[in-house]
Formats: sequence, structure tokens, C-alpha cells
Amino acid sequence: MEKIEKVINKIRSENLSSFFFSSYSNVFYLTGFSSTNAFVLLTEKKRYFFTDNRYYLGAKKKLKDWEVFLIEGLNDLKEKLISLGGNRIGFEKDKTTISFYENLITNSDLDKKLIGYDGFLDEIRAIKTEEEINIIKKAVEKTDDIFKYIVNNINSFSTELDVRREIVNQIFLKNGEGESFPAIVASGENSAIPHYQTSDIEIKKDAPLLIDMGMKYKGYCSDFTRTVFIGSVPQKLKDIYEIVKEANIEATNIVKEGITAREVDLKARELIKRYGYGDYFIHSTGHGIGIDIHEFPRISYKSDTVLKEGMIFTIEPGIYIKGLGGVRLENVVLCKKNKAEVLTKTSLDLIEV
Amino acid sequence: MEKIEKVINKIRSENLSSFFFSSYSNVFYLTGFSSTNAFVLLTEKKRYFFTDNRYYLGAKKKLKDWEVFLIEGLNDLKEKLISLGGNRIGFEKDKTTISFYENLITNSDLDKKLIGYDGFLDEIRAIKTEEEINIIKKAVEKTDDIFKYIVNNINSFSTELDVRREIVNQIFLKNGEGESFPAIVASGENSAIPHYQTSDIEIKKDAPLLIDMGMKYKGYCSDFTRTVFIGSVPQKLKDIYEIVKEANIEATNIVKEGITAREVDLKARELIKRYGYGDYFIHSTGHGIGIDIHEFPRISYKSDTVLKEGMIFTIEPGIYIKGLGGVRLENVVLCKKNKAEVLTKTSLDLIEV
Repeated sequence: MEKIEKVINKIRSENLSSFFFSSYSNVFYLTGFSSTNAFVLLTEKKRYFFTDNRYYLGAKKKLKDWEVFLIEGLNDLKEKLISLGGNRIGFEKDKTTISFYENLITNSDLDKKLIGYDGFLDEIRAIKTEEEINIIKKAVEKTDDIFKYIVNNINSFSTELDVRREIVNQIFLKNGEGESFPAIVASGENSAIPHYQTSDIEIKKDAPLLIDMGMKYKGYCSDFTRTVFIGSVPQKLKDIYEIVKEANIEATNIVKEGITAREVDLKARELIKRYGYGDYFIHSTGHGIGIDIHEFPRISYKSDTVLKEGMIFTIEPGIYIKGLGGVRLENVVLCKKNKAEVLTKTSLDLIEV
Repeated sequence: MEKIEKVINKIRSENLSSFFFSSYSNVFYLTGFSSTNAFVLLTEKKRYFFTDNRYYLGAKKKLKDWEVFLIEGLNDLKEKLISLGGNRIGFEKDKTTISFYENLITNSDLDKKLIGYDGFLDEIRAIKTEEEINIIKKAVEKTDDIFKYIVNNINSFSTELDVRREIVNQIFLKNGEGESFPAIVASGENSAIPHYQTSDIEIKKDAPLLIDMGMKYKGYCSDFTRTVFIGSVPQKLKDIYEIVKEANIEATNIVKEGITAREVDLKARELIKRYGYGDYFIHSTGHGIGIDIHEFPRISYKSDTVLKEGMIFTIEPGIYIKGLGGVRLENVVLCKKNKAEVLTKTSLDLIEV
């Protein structure tokens, strides 16, 4: 359990007696157990898991290395924290509502014991284990296959929503748990809106079609974008496509352990700027993925995070021209010692259908 | 805009200068605008909407009655709250993380102005407007149709996941935005687990099949459960089916304005207890639905909420026998002056296929 070891080391180095985890993704990260109501308390020696009677028996069966407790409400949880947590209990203040915290400290001395942290697990979760890398590779591979299926059958869809419907169908056919976020299928001018909401409008001929999708597989996310050209599109969009492709490749090429997220972002950003489209690349170059679709690190010029071997993130530059359309090309990459391993296998070459 | 009027009255009666909304569902409730990063500030006279540049143009176009501001980060938001919010600014402390709050009050006097509330809109949102009632009716009707389709084609599915895949496919075909929660399709013994996670196991013959599903439609949720019997199932399960059906009908029959959620829950609970299955009904009788799949009020013996005309909630008693199977039957009902209007049109009679 290398993950838990790292977390316990961090608890020790922060001089905490324990850490209390309440967010879905951190609890899943530590236990592999998926529940809408579960909590973890970790001390140097002990692993405690708390859940209600909908999940209790399942948790008891699955979590052999954990002491599993049934809790019937917040008071039970509070008692466990007081009796098991020690005097310096770390907690996730970036995931905890004020009301939840207030309820915990009411009629207890927990306010003197609880110590809030932002992103306590961010850096640990960013470095994927071999098992996690294999799951994400599989999710990315399945997503490549879904895209291939969609492109091969593109003429059978009449609306954007038809495409999304088939994406979801394929995700389930490939034993995914669902979308990692609502798929964006944006035809024509809609492709110029980075967070477009897929609708039942017709897919336009002689226009770009942007597909941004991902699946959840064994609890982990994939993320993928390609922009295909249907029929003949204006030369300007073809030029833009080549610029975005070049930006994606150049940013990917400098990825390795030791460089910063800022350097990767600026590589894509400055290239796009040199071509005169700086004002049309209106988001950051990428983001970590894992249990959450957006994780640490952000691949942004605002981030001085140093990349490390084992980090998995997206590289997804884009150029968006209002009234004309947009191009975004997104791969998932794994940072290695001396280079990026591109997990997405779909070519970056322009696909015309 | 009757919704906004009610909220402004509440702001006034709490003697607040404004209220700051930051949760997805409350912002959607007030504006009809769907965004992952948007905030509302309401004063007696003014309506302010804040979002980032991914949503700004869309919001400006759609929200004619609102002053729409572009915010680039938390500092922009902070400045707006200080300059526009007045001296007593209510906020949703049950939806706000400690970190977000700390960032707001750092280097500002907002800590002296912000006043936290739990469930500020709960009671207002619980009473649905005519427009909301019509949307939910439509969502429930579409869900009935999906269930009919599934039952009529039950022999074409081999695994639980096949059924869920077709449910999702049908949701999109009916212009839904997706599932309102991951559909539960539980075959045989799995039906005894109320929060079962649908898997790729075969659908058993001579066993119950429990289907609990819902869709999102125009931003609102439906929720639906039936347990069908495939082949011949043990007499005990048939007896249980009739008890759960009777509990559903009896609980529904007492719904009207003025009685409490507790009375409705106890009607189902005591009936099940009289038949000797009290220990096997391990959840509450229902919950409000709307923009969220679980809303105020809970239909629980722990709740003394008085039901009012316009509330929409589920009635979903169940009996679960480990190793044998479970039966849950769930309708959506609208509370009226003198009775419940059952929005779900699928019969409660046993379906054997």
C-alpha cells in the first residue's frame, strides 16, 4: 500500500496525530471504496473507515485492512474523532462546508484539535502509482476506440445529441461507469465556445465538429478532444488546425521531470501568439486527471509546480474564433524522467470526413 | 418572477442588505442559467450575476433582468461583494467550504458583514411553481415511458448494465440531459441492497429485478422505482410485494396540505411493521425532488415539516431480505390541498415477465 505509506509520512511530517478525510475522491483514493457517505481517519498505526448502514456490510467485506465502523449520524462520527483522533487532527478545509465543521465542534473540544489543510493529498495523488497508470491507460485506450467508432459512423448521426448518446452507449459497452463529464459535441460556430452545452441542433455540413469527451473506468477519468472537419471548411480553420496541432506537439515535447507547468503552458501559448492568435487561446493548456476530471497540477502559466515522473495530465491547446468556429486538440500524457509518454493514441492529423 | 419575489421577501424579513448565492442549484433556481462557475447577489432592488469568460457572453444574452459581471477570480468577486452587498450579506454556509470563506474574508471586512444560513432557500424551493410542476410532470411521464420500453424489451438484455445502458440511451432519445443519478439495476439477491451499484452480472431468471432510475429534464429530476418479477419467484417475495404496494398506497392516501412528513413516513412504516417486516424497511419513505435529486423535505419520521400544496416528493417504501431479495416501489407525488396527485402513471400492480 504505497499510497497509504506516503500519506502517513505526510501526517507524521506535519506533526499531526491523525488526518480526517471526508471528500468522496480522497476517501476513494485511500480505500478504493465508492460511497456517497463515508469518512476515513488515518493515524500512524491505524486505519478507520466510517459509513452508514447502506454501505456498512459491503465495506466490512471489502476493507480487510481497515477498522470499519457503522455511524448513524454526525454525533457518532464526532465521538469517533474525539476518541480515536488524538490532539492534532488534520482535516480537508477545502472540501468541508462551514455548517459541517460547526456541527462537529458544537458541544465538543474538536475546535481545539482540528487543523485545516488545503489540498492535503494533491501532490501525493498527482504522482500516479503503477496500478493507477494502468487503469488510466486502459480508460484512454477505450476512449480512443470510442472516437474511432464515432468517426467511422459519423454519417449516421443527425444532431449533436445523437453523437453524445452514442458516446455514452459506447462507454457502457466498454464497461465504463459513465461519462467523466457531460460530453461536448459542438458543430460549426458552437465549436468556438470552449464549454459548449451539447444540444439537439443538426450537425452542420462544411463545418468543424468538436468532440470533447471522457469516461470513468474503475473510478478513474479519461479526457479527450478532437476537432474533425465535415465537408469543406474555410482555409482559415485549416490553418488554425495546424497551429493548434503544432502547439500540442511542441508543448508535449518539452514535458519531462523537472520542468514547470508554466513552461509547458507557455510553450503552447507563445507558439499560438507568434501566429497571431494569442487572444483566441482563452484557457490553460491542461490539467491533471485521475479520480477527478480536474486534478492537481494545472498546466497553466500561473503555476510554478515542478512536473514529476508519474504525473498524468492533459495537453489541450485551442483557438476559438467567434462566428467561425474553434479547434481544440487534447491528449493525455504521462510525465516520465526524460519525456512525455502520450497515452492517447489517436493521431493529431486532421481528419476530414 | 414569483420565485425571486419570495426570496427578496425572505431577505427583507431577515433584515439582510443582500444574499450571496454560490451553489449550483440555487444559482440555477434563481436564474435558469447552468454554469459550473457562477454566483448571484440579490438585494431588494438589484439582481447581480457573476461568471467567468467561458460563460459571460451567454449569460449576458440570456439574463436580461440581471446585471451580469465578468469575474476573473476570487478577488473580483470579493470587490463586488464589498461594493454592492451592503452591511449584512447572507450566504449559504451549508454549501460554502471553509477555504472559500477564508479567501473571501482575507484582507477585507467581509467577516463582519457575512451572515451564514443553512438551507436558506429550502422552504421556498420546496413549493414548486406551476412552471416547475409542468417540467417535473413531463420528466416523470418520460420516465414512465422509458420503464415501459424496458419492460417490453426485457428479454433483449442479458446483464444489469445492459439495462442501464438502454435507460441512458432512452433518456437522451427523450431529450433528457442525462441520468438524475446512476440508475440502479439490481437482479436477484442484489435487490436487497438499497444502494446497489449496477454491474455486468447476468440478469437472473426466477428472481426479482429492481430498477431505480431518473432523468434530468430542463434542469429538473425525476425519480422512479419498480421491482418486476422475472419467471417464478418465491411466494415470500410476492407477499412482500403486496405489503410494499399497500404501504405505498396508504402513505400516498394521507398526503395533503397540513399533515407532517412524519405522519406520511409512519403510515408506511407502521403498516410494514404490522406485517412483521419493520426491521427490513431501512430507509425513510421519501424525499423532495426538484433541481436536486434529494431536496427538502425528507419524508422521514424524524421530520416535523408540515406538508404544503405544491411540494413534490417521492413515496418509496421497501422491504429488503438479505440473501433473498428486495422490493421497492417509488412514485413521485404532488401535494395538493386535500390529497396527493400521483405524477407517476405506471401501475403499482405486480409485473411478471
